[in-house]
Amino acid sequence: MSDCSFLKVIFLFALAAFIATGQRPPRIVSPEVHPDRTVTFRLRGPEVNEVVLEANWAGDPKPLDKGDDGVWTITIGPVEPGIFSYRYRIDGVSTIDPHNPGVKPWAGGASSLVEIPAGEPAFYDLRDVPHGDLHVHRYHSSTVGKTRRVFVYTPPGYDAGDADYPTLYLLHGAGDNESLWSQLGRADLILDNLIAIGQAKPMLVVMPNGHPVPYGEHRREPGRNTDQFRDDLVKDLLPFIESRYRVRTDRLGRAVVGLSMGGGQALHVGLGRTDLFSQVGAFSAAVSDPPSNPAIQAFIADPEKSNQEVRLLWIAIGEDDFLLERNRKFTTYLKEKGIDFFYAETVGDHSWPVWRRYLHEFAGLLFRFGDE
Amino acid sequence: MSDCSFLKVIFLFALAAFIATGQRPPRIVSPEVHPDRTVTFRLRGPEVNEVVLEANWAGDPKPLDKGDDGVWTITIGPVEPGIFSYRYRIDGVSTIDPHNPGVKPWAGGASSLVEIPAGEPAFYDLRDVPHGDLHVHRYHSSTVGKTRRVFVYTPPGYDAGDADYPTLYLLHGAGDNESLWSQLGRADLILDNLIAIGQAKPMLVVMPNGHPVPYGEHRREPGRNTDQFRDDLVKDLLPFIESRYRVRTDRLGRAVVGLSMGGGQALHVGLGRTDLFSQVGAFSAAVSDPPSNPAIQAFIADPEKSNQEVRLLWIAIGEDDFLLERNRKFTTYLKEKGIDFFYAETVGDHSWPVWRRYLHEFAGLLFRFGDE
Repeated sequence: MSDCSFLKVIFLFALAAFIATGQRPPRIVSPEVHPDRTVTFRLRGPEVNEVVLEANWAGDPKPLDKGDDGVWTITIGPVEPGIFSYRYRIDGVSTIDPHNPGVKPWAGGASSLVEIPAGEPAFYDLRDVPHGDLHVHRYHSSTVGKTRRVFVYTPPGYDAGDADYPTLYLLHGAGDNESLWSQLGRADLILDNLIAIGQAKPMLVVMPNGHPVPYGEHRREPGRNTDQFRDDLVKDLLPFIESRYRVRTDRLGRAVVGLSMGGGQALHVGLGRTDLFSQVGAFSAAVSDPPSNPAIQAFIADPEKSNQEVRLLWIAIGEDDFLLERNRKFTTYLKEKGIDFFYAETVGDHSWPVWRRYLHEFAGLLFRFGDE
Repeated sequence: MSDCSFLKVIFLFALAAFIATGQRPPRIVSPEVHPDRTVTFRLRGPEVNEVVLEANWAGDPKPLDKGDDGVWTITIGPVEPGIFSYRYRIDGVSTIDPHNPGVKPWAGGASSLVEIPAGEPAFYDLRDVPHGDLHVHRYHSSTVGKTRRVFVYTPPGYDAGDADYPTLYLLHGAGDNESLWSQLGRADLILDNLIAIGQAKPMLVVMPNGHPVPYGEHRREPGRNTDQFRDDLVKDLLPFIESRYRVRTDRLGRAVVGLSMGGGQALHVGLGRTDLFSQVGAFSAAVSDPPSNPAIQAFIADPEKSNQEVRLLWIAIGEDDFLLERNRKFTTYLKEKGIDFFYAETVGDHSWPVWRRYLHEFAGLLFRFGDE
């Protein structure tokens, strides 16, 4: 390859990048995570009057300072390792950081993402261990009357073996969809790492979509969404999974857990259908006080039977979570009624660093119960 | 459930949405696609001085008009059905449309997305036909020295059958990654729909990551990226796929095609390794003139042998694509040298509506060649 043609190729790619984005190639690095885990945010905006960092994990909104070069900056932290979302308010418009390729799309408005690495590979990082696989299926839901998507994690060795695996149904929050537990939650890497050191049983993880009712309608009718979600899971998704995969079909081989909205859904499905599920978890869950859900009320009505059926009921919430009080009241109520459960208030707020930790702890406890 | 507790639950979800986004729930709809396929773009920005729509498929940048309510608007079109990306320039800062949940993240800067629906379900829309599955694998690349990700489409019936399937390697562009051909390109739905009406042979589609060299370095060293990509595909990925899936291992059972940067890679791999591939395509490809690539030069050097080995060489480009001239010169050169190929200049520019159409046409031509 002559020097000249090599330069032509380079020019071609630069031109493609230029035209594809309709802007100059980026020269601003934002966010920049420093070795001491402080983080610098930047925005090139010589014509802008005000830039504010919106990041509730970093406290109140914070104005950026404008430099002579038209670049706005702010440095915060140090920040704990984990993944965090933030937005810029540019002259009053709340939007993403345009210099940052990490974006979480969402119906309620996209956010930018920053991952603060731990000093050494964390329990959710890619490590040199055997990796499971993700599968994306479309199945027909007779409940919803639509074709729906589901993500499924199979553990390392699934294809080569012939064992029947237990299954964890893992539910997302109101601002997420079926792809987020693997994309941001790193559920697949967390399971790979746990299984590699024998701290979790090899299991399937099924990640359904929690919005059978479209997001806009759902905020007006959360009850209808929860009921449709349960019916879809029990009548459509579960038979689909159990016909496509080598999985256990006994209740001791099934668990269900979710975060935020999904925590409420997990309690609804898991405690309401103890004939199908035996292990239930609720991470930072949207619970009501007193539990207005008929399925949960029925579960509470016979604590002796319920405590025997549900082998694990695991509830946790961050001490800075806006749902803390509701979880306190909910668990106090359960206790008064004689229901057995594990409950923890931990560091953290309503965010992915907490949910990664909770999944890591919860997954390790599952499927350790013998026959009935 | 009493009315009161139902209201509490509604309040809780509204609160969660409010806190999760750090802003009021969105009331602005943008973009709004009208029945006549005109599109209205909006931005709430009472404090903003200027908003410009950047969308090269719609011509030059266009200013939005500010209403008395502080909402900026513009209506364009009608627009042809398909998927398009755009950005807003807000007081000189190029960023996404914050009211639009459709976002394409990219290292070069995120874009907003708008899908203009066709009058009836198009060849790339979800239809009531059997659906294949997507799989996401991590494999170790000895070439790159890293664990890499690959998306694989298996056609409907793959799990239940015992046939060996042919394989199409489908490569993305410089601004994309291994997830984009399914996410934006709808490769899985296009194949589902083609297979359902017998217009394509059931096949696996393997979608690798085209950036073995990280994006920033790669723009300085595209030649190194192309070579590493080829070596990874041939030495690491292909053996991985053929050990994990029931696929044909003869050259007539393998095809490779890509778009833009991936089109260049497909020519490099496919024409350079006719012992492995027999069908090659290049969509809107980044080709150099004259072909400086040694693999392509070697292919051209013996047209009689090359024409016999490559059963299909399919090249197409949009008449509004910035790479049109290069593709004209490249195909003129091939013709002068006596190479057989199909070449078309079609409507369209350098964008997904074109690539969806090309995949639809190309996939239907594959794996129709008998034994050697």
